[in-house]
Amino acid sequence: MLENIRSSSDLKKLNNEELAELCGEIRSELIRTVSANGGHLASNLGIVELTVALHRVYNTPEDKIIFDVGHQSYVHKMVTGRFSRFGSLRTHNGISGFPKKAESEYDCFETGHASTAISAATGFARARDYRNERHHVVAVVGDGAMTGGMCYEALNDAGNLKTQLTVILNDNEMSIAPNVGALSSYLTHLRISAGWQSAKKRVRRITDIPLIGKTLYRIIHGFKKVIKSLVLRNSDIGFFEALGFQYFGPIDGHDISSLEETLKQVRTYSVPCVVHVLTKKGYGYEQAEKRPEAFHGTPPFYIETGDRMKEPQVRSSGHQMADRLSEMASSDPRIVAITAAMPLGTGLDHFAEKYPDRLIDVGIAEEHAATMAAGLAAGGMRPYFAVYASFFQRCYDQMIHDVCMQHLPVVFLLDRSGIGGEDGQTHHGVFDYASLLPVPGMTVLSPCDADELCDMLSWTIRQDGPVAIRYGKDGTRVQFPQERAPFECGKWNIPVHGNDLVLLAAGSMLRVSLQVADLLNEKGLSAETVNCSSIKPLDENYLKGLRENVPVFTLEEHMVTGGFGQYVAEKARELGVRTPDWCFGINDKFIQHGSHSLLMEDAGLSAAQIAERILHILGRK
Amino acid sequence: MLENIRSSSDLKKLNNEELAELCGEIRSELIRTVSANGGHLASNLGIVELTVALHRVYNTPEDKIIFDVGHQSYVHKMVTGRFSRFGSLRTHNGISGFPKKAESEYDCFETGHASTAISAATGFARARDYRNERHHVVAVVGDGAMTGGMCYEALNDAGNLKTQLTVILNDNEMSIAPNVGALSSYLTHLRISAGWQSAKKRVRRITDIPLIGKTLYRIIHGFKKVIKSLVLRNSDIGFFEALGFQYFGPIDGHDISSLEETLKQVRTYSVPCVVHVLTKKGYGYEQAEKRPEAFHGTPPFYIETGDRMKEPQVRSSGHQMADRLSEMASSDPRIVAITAAMPLGTGLDHFAEKYPDRLIDVGIAEEHAATMAAGLAAGGMRPYFAVYASFFQRCYDQMIHDVCMQHLPVVFLLDRSGIGGEDGQTHHGVFDYASLLPVPGMTVLSPCDADELCDMLSWTIRQDGPVAIRYGKDGTRVQFPQERAPFECGKWNIPVHGNDLVLLAAGSMLRVSLQVADLLNEKGLSAETVNCSSIKPLDENYLKGLRENVPVFTLEEHMVTGGFGQYVAEKARELGVRTPDWCFGINDKFIQHGSHSLLMEDAGLSAAQIAERILHILGRK
Repeated sequence: MLENIRSSSDLKKLNNEELAELCGEIRSELIRTVSANGGHLASNLGIVELTVALHRVYNTPEDKIIFDVGHQSYVHKMVTGRFSRFGSLRTHNGISGFPKKAESEYDCFETGHASTAISAATGFARARDYRNERHHVVAVVGDGAMTGGMCYEALNDAGNLKTQLTVILNDNEMSIAPNVGALSSYLTHLRISAGWQSAKKRVRRITDIPLIGKTLYRIIHGFKKVIKSLVLRNSDIGFFEALGFQYFGPIDGHDISSLEETLKQVRTYSVPCVVHVLTKKGYGYEQAEKRPEAFHGTPPFYIETGDRMKEPQVRSSGHQMADRLSEMASSDPRIVAITAAMPLGTGLDHFAEKYPDRLIDVGIAEEHAATMAAGLAAGGMRPYFAVYASFFQRCYDQMIHDVCMQHLPVVFLLDRSGIGGEDGQTHHGVFDYASLLPVPGMTVLSPCDADELCDMLSWTIRQDGPVAIRYGKDGTRVQFPQERAPFECGKWNIPVHGNDLVLLAAGSMLRVSLQVADLLNEKGLSAETVNCSSIKPLDENYLKGLRENVPVFTLEEHMVTGGFGQYVAEKARELGVRTPDWCFGINDKFIQHGSHSLLMEDAGLSAAQIAERILHILGRK
Repeated sequence: MLENIRSSSDLKKLNNEELAELCGEIRSELIRTVSANGGHLASNLGIVELTVALHRVYNTPEDKIIFDVGHQSYVHKMVTGRFSRFGSLRTHNGISGFPKKAESEYDCFETGHASTAISAATGFARARDYRNERHHVVAVVGDGAMTGGMCYEALNDAGNLKTQLTVILNDNEMSIAPNVGALSSYLTHLRISAGWQSAKKRVRRITDIPLIGKTLYRIIHGFKKVIKSLVLRNSDIGFFEALGFQYFGPIDGHDISSLEETLKQVRTYSVPCVVHVLTKKGYGYEQAEKRPEAFHGTPPFYIETGDRMKEPQVRSSGHQMADRLSEMASSDPRIVAITAAMPLGTGLDHFAEKYPDRLIDVGIAEEHAATMAAGLAAGGMRPYFAVYASFFQRCYDQMIHDVCMQHLPVVFLLDRSGIGGEDGQTHHGVFDYASLLPVPGMTVLSPCDADELCDMLSWTIRQDGPVAIRYGKDGTRVQFPQERAPFECGKWNIPVHGNDLVLLAAGSMLRVSLQVADLLNEKGLSAETVNCSSIKPLDENYLKGLRENVPVFTLEEHMVTGGFGQYVAEKARELGVRTPDWCFGINDKFIQHGSHSLLMEDAGLSAAQIAERILHILGRK
C-alpha cells in the first residue's frame, strides 16, 4: 500500500480502514529500516497518525509544514514520494535523516537543531501575506523543543500577527530525556484537566450506538463549539493565550479522525493557533515504548529483542569523562554538571547515578545553560557544561559575554566535535575552534583520546578561568609508540620523532597522523608526529624549535578557516618561525551525511589522502 | 546628602522625607553627569526609587542584585560608594556605564547584552543552596528584555526550583523603542486590570485623613492579604504562573513605600517570585519623559532644552543605508527590513517612514530574527536584518544553521562593528569576521565608508545567497586621492599605489591606512594602500600579483585571531604567494570603555603606532 503513496494527494483517497492499514505499514517500515541503518525511531513511531492527518487536511506542498528538529520527518518522507528510496536512509548519498530541500519540494525548510520551526513558520507566514498568497503554514514542534527560548521569541512575535499560522505542539512528555522545567509541569496540568476532550470522547462513545447514535451525534455536534468555548475559557490556557495564540486541545495524537476533525476546524482560523496533540514516543513497537530514550537515536538493532547489533567495544569519551568527573566530585563539593536535555548522549547519566542532585538538566536551552553556569561559577561553584559541539553554537554569545568577559571558571565539554556521521550537516561540530580561539582568556584543549580527556579534566579544577575541551564520541585509546607523557597545558607531546617533516595534529587527528607517518615512512620520509592537545595556549617553545628547512603540516577535524592550523600560522608568524606549509582540515563546504570514514574521505582527510597530498607538496610524487 | 551615602547601609537610616530628597539629588546628578558625558539617561531616571528600595530592603552586597542589560545601574553605582567618582562615568579608566566586578563588590555579575539576568540569578540561587548559604538573589529585568528567549529558558528552569529567587519586572512599556510582541499586550492587560493595586491606592487616599485615617488604615490593612489573594487568583496571571512563579503586582515603581512594603513581603517567600513594577522612563526630567527613545542612550546635551551639544555633521552609516534600502524597496516589493528592537540605532526608522509595513521589529530576539529572516527568504522575500555586530553574536547558530546551510538570500547588516567606544567591552563588535569567515557560502563585506556600504547594498539584491556587511557608526566619506572605482565583489581597489610595502586595509581601517601611508611617505617609504572591502571572497588576483620581496601588512578593527589578516594568510599560503609580515588588529584582550580614539591607541591601532611598528619590522628604526 505504501508503495502506491507517491504524493500527499494519494493519501486523501484512503478510507478509515485503509488509513489504519497504512499506518501499520509505515510503522513496520520504520522499524525495519531503522533497525538496519540506525536512526531516530521513537519520535517517528509517535508521529505516524499526526503526519498522515496533516497531509490529508493540508494541501502540501503548497501549504508549508515545517518539522522542528526534523528527526521526526521519516514518516513525512515516506508519504511524499520517497518510500522507494527509504532503505538508503542516513547512508552516504542516500535519504537524509532530516528535511532536505534538495530531496523534495515537500521539505520547504531544513531543520536539525531544536526550536527553530515557529520562527521559520512566522517568516513563511509573513512572506505569504506580503505576496498575497493564500496557503497555510504549519510548524510541528515537540514539547521538548518548547523549552528553547527561540520558540518563545517566535510565539511572542507571531502572537501579534493577525494571520494564519498553526503550531502543532506534539506533546509526548519528553524531549530526548524526560522533560524538565516548569512548562512541562504546566503541560501535564493541561493534560489532566482536559475537560473538553474527554467530554468529546464521551460523545463519541454514545454515537457508536447504531441508528440512534448518528442523530444524537448530529445534535450534540451543534453544541460542540459552545462546549469548547466554555471549557477553553478557563485559566489553564493562560500561557499560550498570553502570547496571543488560540489554544486547541489536548487531542489524542493516535486517533486520525479526531486529529483531522480538529485540524479542519483550525484550518478555518485566520489567527495564530496552537494545537496540543498528545502522542506516545515509540507507539506501536513495544521495545521503543518501554525504553523511548534508548530508541530516540539508535544504532542498528534486532527487531525482536530491541538489542543493539553491535555493542560498542569501548565506552564513549563522554562516559569516561563522566566517571572522572564523578571521582573529582567526591572530593570537591563545588563541582556540578550541566546538560541541555542530553544526560545520556553526553554520558552525564553516569555522573547523575552518583550525584543526582549535582546534575542540572535545564532542558533544550543552551543559552540559559551557559549563563546559568556563569552564575554558578560567580557564586562559588565549579560548573561543567557538557554539550554537543554543534549545539554549543547556540550559546556563542553567552560564552563570550557571560563567561569569558568575567573570566569565570566554567568548563565547556564539547562532545561530538569534528565530523559526526549519519546525522549530517547540522550535527557536525566543525566551527568550534573558530568560535573559541579569538576570545580572550579562553583555554582551548583537544585531547587525542579519552585518556587524555580525563587527564585534562583533572587539570581544569586547578584553573580560575574558562576552559573548553573538544572531543569526539569514540573513546578508543590511541596507541603511543612509547609511554605517553602526562597532559600539560601549553606543552605538546611528541609520540614520534622525525627529521624530514613535522605533523602537528589537533585532537582526534593524532590517530590519523600516526597512520600518515607510517605511510610516509614507507616512502622513506621520517615525519615527526606531534600531539597538539593544547590548542590555546599552544606550545610556543616547540614552535620556536622548528627548523627553517623542515616543512610543517597541521591536521584538524575542523574548518581550515579559523581553525587550529591558522592559529599555529598566526603564532609562528609572531614568533618569526616557519609557518605551516599546508593546513589540513575541511575546506569551505558543508559536509553531508554518511559514515565517519566516508565523510573524512569527502573532506580529503583520510590518512592515505593526506600522505599523498604531502608527497605531492614535497615534490615526491 | 548623596555624598554621605557610602554603602547600602547608609540608605537604611533615612526617613521618608530624606528619601524623597535623596531621590531628587540622584536625579539631578544623573542629568548633570549624563548631559556632560553622554550615556543612558531615561532608564536610570525611571529606576531611582526602585534601586533605593532594593538596597533598603535587601542586605547588599551579601544579597545579590543583578541588573539585566546593566545600563540602568547608574543609580546603583551612586548609592554603593561610587558617587565621588561618578563624574568619570563612561570615560577612559573612569566608572563604567555597566556593572563591573572590578569596581565594586556590589556588582556581583556583569551585564551588557539583554535577557541574561534571570539565568545568572538562577545560577547564583543554586550556588547558594549547594553551599548552604542564606542570602537572597534578585534579578532586575526590563519588560523589553523579557522578549528575549533566554528569559523564558531561565523562567522555565527556575520555575521548577523550590527556592528563593526574585525577578523584578521593571515595566516601563518599552525596551529601547516602544515594545512589541504579544507579551507586551499581555502586560498592558495586567496593568489595566490591576484591581488590587488601585484598591490599595484608594485605601491610601482614605488614610490621608488625619486621626481617623490611621485607625481605618489599620483595619483595612488586615484585609489586604485577603483582597490580594482574591484579585491575583484571576486568569490574567497565567503566564508567570504557568512557568512556576508567584506573581505580585503591578506596583507603582515611583512610590518607595509601596515598593518596600511589597519587597519585604516577597522577601519572606522561599519560592520563585515575579514582582511587576511600573515605572516611567525619564521620570522627573521633562525632556526625557517626552522623548524617552532619544534619551535612551544620548550624547552630551543641554539640560534646559534637551538639545544635543554637537549634532553629528554627517549622517550615520545606518541612516545612509536605510535611505538606500528605501530606494531599492520602491522598485522591489520583495525587500523587507528586520530589527531586534533597534529601529533608531540601526537607522531603520528612516526606512519605516516610507515603508512602515515592511519594517519588522521582533523585539530583543536576535535568534528568532535570523531564523524568521530565513523563513521569509525561503518564502520568496528579500530580508535585510540590521543588527549591532555585538548583538549579532546572539544569532550565531541561526546564521550557520538556518541561513547558510540552506544558502538563503538573507543580508546581515552588522552596524557598530569594530571598537565601539564608551559603552565598553560588551558592545564592541570585534568577533564577527571570525564567526562569519569559516561558514561555507557566506559572503563577507566591509565597506571603507557609507558610500561604499550603499554600493554594496545595491549589489546584494542580485545575489542568491547570504551576505554579511560589517560597518561602523561613522558615516563620513573617505577621501580617495583619485576617483574611486565602484564596488565589485571579489575585487580590491587601490587608492594609493606604492612599491616598498603593501597595506591591506579591511573596512574602517582604510582611513587609518591612508594616514599610515602618509606617515611612511615622510620616511621615504611608498606604501601601496588597498581597500579590501571584499573580505570573502577576497581578491585572489591581487594576491597572486604580490611580489615576493615586498612586505605585506594587514589592518583591521577586529581580533587578530580568526580575522581578516589570518584569512589573507590562509589564502596566500594556498596560492603560494607571500603571506602577511604582520597582521594589525586587536591582540588577545578585551577592550574596555572610552573614546574611540583612545581605545584604538589601547589596541595599538592608531596611525602613528602602526607606522612606527612597520618601520620597526622593516628595520628602519
